[in-house]
Amino acid sequence: MARERQLSRRSLLGSTAALAGAATLTATTAGTAAAATTRDVDVAIVGGGLAGLTAARDLVAAGRTVVVLEARDRVGGRVVNLRLPDGGVTEGGGEFIGPTQDRIKALADSLGVATFATYNTGKNLLYKDGRKTPYATDGLLGSVPPVDVAGLANAAIVQASLDDMAKQVPVDAPWTAAKAAEWDKQTFESWLNANAVVPSAKFLLDVACTSIFSAEPRELSLLFVLFYIAAAGNASTPGTLERLTETANGAQELRFVGGSQRVPAGLAATLGDRVVLNAPVRTIARSGGTYVVTADGITVTAKRVVVAVPPPLAARIRYDPLLPAARDQLTQRLPMASVAKAIAIYDTPFWRADGLNGQVVSDTGVISSTFDNSPPDASYGALMGFIEADEARKLDAASEAEVRAAVLKDYVTYFGEKAASPSSFVLQRWNNEAYTRGGPVSIAAPGVLTQYGPALREPVGGIHWAGTETSVHWMGFMDGAVRSGERVAKEVLAVL
Amino acid sequence: MARERQLSRRSLLGSTAALAGAATLTATTAGTAAAATTRDVDVAIVGGGLAGLTAARDLVAAGRTVVVLEARDRVGGRVVNLRLPDGGVTEGGGEFIGPTQDRIKALADSLGVATFATYNTGKNLLYKDGRKTPYATDGLLGSVPPVDVAGLANAAIVQASLDDMAKQVPVDAPWTAAKAAEWDKQTFESWLNANAVVPSAKFLLDVACTSIFSAEPRELSLLFVLFYIAAAGNASTPGTLERLTETANGAQELRFVGGSQRVPAGLAATLGDRVVLNAPVRTIARSGGTYVVTADGITVTAKRVVVAVPPPLAARIRYDPLLPAARDQLTQRLPMASVAKAIAIYDTPFWRADGLNGQVVSDTGVISSTFDNSPPDASYGALMGFIEADEARKLDAASEAEVRAAVLKDYVTYFGEKAASPSSFVLQRWNNEAYTRGGPVSIAAPGVLTQYGPALREPVGGIHWAGTETSVHWMGFMDGAVRSGERVAKEVLAVL
Repeated sequence: MARERQLSRRSLLGSTAALAGAATLTATTAGTAAAATTRDVDVAIVGGGLAGLTAARDLVAAGRTVVVLEARDRVGGRVVNLRLPDGGVTEGGGEFIGPTQDRIKALADSLGVATFATYNTGKNLLYKDGRKTPYATDGLLGSVPPVDVAGLANAAIVQASLDDMAKQVPVDAPWTAAKAAEWDKQTFESWLNANAVVPSAKFLLDVACTSIFSAEPRELSLLFVLFYIAAAGNASTPGTLERLTETANGAQELRFVGGSQRVPAGLAATLGDRVVLNAPVRTIARSGGTYVVTADGITVTAKRVVVAVPPPLAARIRYDPLLPAARDQLTQRLPMASVAKAIAIYDTPFWRADGLNGQVVSDTGVISSTFDNSPPDASYGALMGFIEADEARKLDAASEAEVRAAVLKDYVTYFGEKAASPSSFVLQRWNNEAYTRGGPVSIAAPGVLTQYGPALREPVGGIHWAGTETSVHWMGFMDGAVRSGERVAKEVLAVL
Repeated sequence: MARERQLSRRSLLGSTAALAGAATLTATTAGTAAAATTRDVDVAIVGGGLAGLTAARDLVAAGRTVVVLEARDRVGGRVVNLRLPDGGVTEGGGEFIGPTQDRIKALADSLGVATFATYNTGKNLLYKDGRKTPYATDGLLGSVPPVDVAGLANAAIVQASLDDMAKQVPVDAPWTAAKAAEWDKQTFESWLNANAVVPSAKFLLDVACTSIFSAEPRELSLLFVLFYIAAAGNASTPGTLERLTETANGAQELRFVGGSQRVPAGLAATLGDRVVLNAPVRTIARSGGTYVVTADGITVTAKRVVVAVPPPLAARIRYDPLLPAARDQLTQRLPMASVAKAIAIYDTPFWRADGLNGQVVSDTGVISSTFDNSPPDASYGALMGFIEADEARKLDAASEAEVRAAVLKDYVTYFGEKAASPSSFVLQRWNNEAYTRGGPVSIAAPGVLTQYGPALREPVGGIHWAGTETSVHWMGFMDGAVRSGERVAKEVLAVL
């Protein structure tokens, strides 16, 4: 099993110059806060991730003036390239794309950023009850780990049930599903306890849950899980759980040559000095018919504002006049999940010679799912693992050395002693990032979608909302971010 | 059934001068932000509610210098007096106290604020299935509404079960309960569905839940509910559900003569110009061994900082260095519940002549529980009702006239045509208040306490946390706020 991500930057590599393949960022870095203290534009966009940048692109194409205010010293938000000490690049955030993720694919194509297949040759590895079991992913079960037959049967029924229920959830208004009230009053854990009754089936679903959401089943509303599954498709192809978890034909199918941040960086380059870095937005105030957006080092006057940051961060901006209660309380109820990414670099992807594809599903350790994150030419090997939910929280206050030791212990367990001595090791700890404070995306506990869902996208006066959390397709993914930018640009153009 | 509250101010009555019985506030109003732009003290306290003011009192008594930075133009936070158009005062926030609430009682005693019994003579009223049933509260069932026998029996078992489970929850560390994991993985709704199987029993528990938490059972972790019950006592008397819901011998037993805000106002008066109003805190930055706390109009340098505001508002302050992930993510996961208070004023408490005590439990309408909020001399009548949870959210965007109409419709249903024409009507809408954004207190969904509970009180460097949400006894009540202030003062004095 696997998963696709929307993440961001490594704290140790803060400067834009540190970004690998950063040539395309040159135009962007010209737009520093010091260069301009006030601007007057049609639309001020808060957040220079894929959502904000896509909105800017479409608004500019329609002849509107914009400024994108980005808090960090780089664009990309939860999508970030990390330079490796010995050269090369790896990804600290969202990196995979897959079928039906049409909008991120179209955007990358337009920028000349090519894709390549996620390494998926050889066998997956199940580590369970202290035993390693390699298994082929092209057999009858696809990539479902070979637990006991009763567990497999139970898991198949559970998966089919989830997909069936997800089909009953309108992606643009999950709260209108006929059974929305019933599904939004219980945790995913409660539902799994009643349905994934075979322990090994529960194990499979638990791993799927933490892999997809970086959250434990107890943290999630069943309705939110069903919405997320339903959203894992496009307008013509309904979402399925399998599309979320698979590599081949799933959300982890492809990667970007040169690293995923090349997409937002390339997009930012086309926007030039419309993108202002190091400009965290503090207040959004209406003044007559216009808005005054105040960021560190720059104040922008605009007719409309697009807020394209995650809901819990949007809550930390001061709004004048106050936001309606529904919107404010929504942002109190969509916390970021908990995740870190750990990438160990080796001279070669040595596991390939052992017939392994680098993908692990494990019932123990701090890392319960991994990927081969090596570059397309395999000039070096990269093992990438997610530290998620409870495991991420346990390590939030640990030193990088402690995290490294815990991660490498797991990698040795899965791949042998060669894994003990990487040439380098990089860690992206999203919970500790000022401008994300968790990841990959917001999650919803019971009661949130049915009571507050409509406030996700409902504009407040001239303030419009974007970001992957607002997308009706591929919410939580790079594709959802791009879709949200396209949607919000249309929304603004309709009234501006 | 009934309940006690920690709430705050009416937006229409913003000025301190508008506060009834405001003589004691004179000293406080002298301490305006304009009078001092910088201060250097031992302890900066963020928030001038009961928690912050109590902490200030104890620190001053120990010889430390303090400043209390209050965002509003009044002290009291979620405790506020509302002046009535024709004279007199009513309460928009926390107003009741009861047995084992020793610390708020001691504080009020020390300030000379007397208590009187909440009006409780005559019969309660059950409105259910379109029928009104008055019932005595001194019978075998106490104040339990007379639903069918099967429902009463079921509700009694459920109540006993909750109390039994609550006894297994250590109030200072609910996450260490032997069954914490089991109880924190499900919603209270899921547990009720399995245990309150008779519909009328479920009705009783639902009303108890919204009355206590202003939240629906689906929004709450079972463990959080059990903790809240366990906390409804003191060090020698374990909490019970009944103590939360009762008037006589319960949390709604007594009120304060002159209105509950006289307590924080009196306390603020003793602190003089140490209290600074209109000073919302924006940043808390460590600079070497000291902290710089920046509020609108004033900057304070301090050795220690006490943050005494609700967690979701504490999240909106900028911290430098960043808070640990555990603390930040905790504040993303403790949203304010949803509540408003509606008080209709009549020439007389006319329901008393009908043998009613003004307390209603209803299965319909925007108001499902009411109190006789008349002054001790009954010189006029006041019917107070809570608009809670889903009902509050439905009305958040409604005009005051619309809310008034909906409330009076309910009051007429319960108390007859005389209720249709109050002499005045006041509304306190906590969800719409900038410096509360919901109420009465924070709530926890499944998974929060077990993963983030320890971060509730754990100091971060020189930053300490207070507020009723941090109290181990009477969390959610005025008493908890006072206890938290006393605890945090001890905590600071131990290191300062």
